[in-house]
Amino acid sequence: MDVIHTVKGLRERLSREPNNVFVPTMGNLHEGHLQLVENAKPRGACTVVSIFVNRMQFGPREDFDKYPRTLQQDCDKLAAIGCDLVFAPDEGEIYPEPQQYAVEPPEIQHILDGAVRPGHFRGVATVVLKLFNMVQPRAAIFGKKDYQQCIVLRNMVRQLALPIDIILADTVRASDGLALSSRNGYLTAAERAEAPALYQALSRAVAELKAGAKDFQRIELQQMAILAGRGWKPEYIAIRRAQDLGQPEAGDADLVVLGAARLGVTRLIDNIEWRLP
Amino acid sequence: MDVIHTVKGLRERLSREPNNVFVPTMGNLHEGHLQLVENAKPRGACTVVSIFVNRMQFGPREDFDKYPRTLQQDCDKLAAIGCDLVFAPDEGEIYPEPQQYAVEPPEIQHILDGAVRPGHFRGVATVVLKLFNMVQPRAAIFGKKDYQQCIVLRNMVRQLALPIDIILADTVRASDGLALSSRNGYLTAAERAEAPALYQALSRAVAELKAGAKDFQRIELQQMAILAGRGWKPEYIAIRRAQDLGQPEAGDADLVVLGAARLGVTRLIDNIEWRLP
Repeated sequence: MDVIHTVKGLRERLSREPNNVFVPTMGNLHEGHLQLVENAKPRGACTVVSIFVNRMQFGPREDFDKYPRTLQQDCDKLAAIGCDLVFAPDEGEIYPEPQQYAVEPPEIQHILDGAVRPGHFRGVATVVLKLFNMVQPRAAIFGKKDYQQCIVLRNMVRQLALPIDIILADTVRASDGLALSSRNGYLTAAERAEAPALYQALSRAVAELKAGAKDFQRIELQQMAILAGRGWKPEYIAIRRAQDLGQPEAGDADLVVLGAARLGVTRLIDNIEWRLP
Repeated sequence: MDVIHTVKGLRERLSREPNNVFVPTMGNLHEGHLQLVENAKPRGACTVVSIFVNRMQFGPREDFDKYPRTLQQDCDKLAAIGCDLVFAPDEGEIYPEPQQYAVEPPEIQHILDGAVRPGHFRGVATVVLKLFNMVQPRAAIFGKKDYQQCIVLRNMVRQLALPIDIILADTVRASDGLALSSRNGYLTAAERAEAPALYQALSRAVAELKAGAKDFQRIELQQMAILAGRGWKPEYIAIRRAQDLGQPEAGDADLVVLGAARLGVTRLIDNIEWRLP
């Protein structure tokens, strides 16, 4: 497995690999990331993983500085599962000058996670476009745990006519249901024991949809109240149209229930897709 | 020469041509465009010209509807000089749905032409990025007559890490100095005779720079006054730093004098680069 740190080196290496499949990450890899790589391997001749903690998608009071950097362990894990190439640039490679040109996503960037994290999806879209332009993959794979990010990027690729297939992979969960996330590492032991309650709240909301409930706002507020009662600070529980995260209208069958909540200092997100019969 | 109207057809045709050089145009081709194509030919194995009048870069009261469409004549001219491929999509190919994701250029999009044409450079940057993603050229060529556009696109390509060389070609002029432009076709005979006065005003400004004048604002206003006195409606004459069109500071040697003015209903622009000794 090659580990490459410069854009120049990456382009040289990939000029011999027209058929590559790309998994962008911020590193600190867990089983969810490794599943994305497993998903990539059969789809192309070269599997490329990028590891880059992108300052542009963090707010000024967010966890950019403390976000875990574990490059050596990440490379060991990737080598063990047959990844071909790791692109691990430093900040000066991706941002050799202040970033002035951005991809501006539409209104979806301002709702849900975007309302809590202003500028986040603009930063995600811009860095992913740059990484796409560096790697020039035939396909790229993202995990559905970051559902809103998946929608933003899938729509960006279609609207900017990028010749890249976007593949969305299912969330990988711990045995108690907690969605795997690098930020789970911030949890204390007591918080870790409590953390599956977010998934449980989403699951109860889905159970209500399954039972035919139509009063979405009542479901959302009820599950937020339950989390708040357990000591969480819920940001949203939201039943949305899967395609664009808009408010569901009569006839919309493909839904997703999304949730974000703070447990102590840690912000967790999760979601479950649900198709109405 | 192939004439292709669909993105799908274009991608299929270009999958056999990894080494193509691209000249994006809005059609109604004149000798300036043909020089761009001549410039492209030796640089790659396949010369691609796009012809697309991009609604997104026109303001609501601008000349989108009356902009001249002359596809058959354009193709004849291109075939005669050895162009390999014309991409002439209709609006539904470039915008199969309302464009919601845009490239947002920085402050330069709001000055000079951008001040007069709000949203223009956002529309230019977005459509050129889409065309780049469709054509995937190794190089692209733009004419310096649209100087601000050249700077916006060159910076976009660098900042978004697109693997494309941007080549800027000199403005082609009529024998009386008028910069060739599709919009010259809007001029009456009397206006056409007057039209070189814009280039003459820029030339006088450059002559003053050459003679050592430092009071840029006086030069700008004086040349605007001369145009106004001849019946033009000048929008700006501006002496700027060539690299980014910022206000020149002590030590800036590479300058450009840009001008925009209306003659009757027709808006003309032009510029001259000047390097201080």
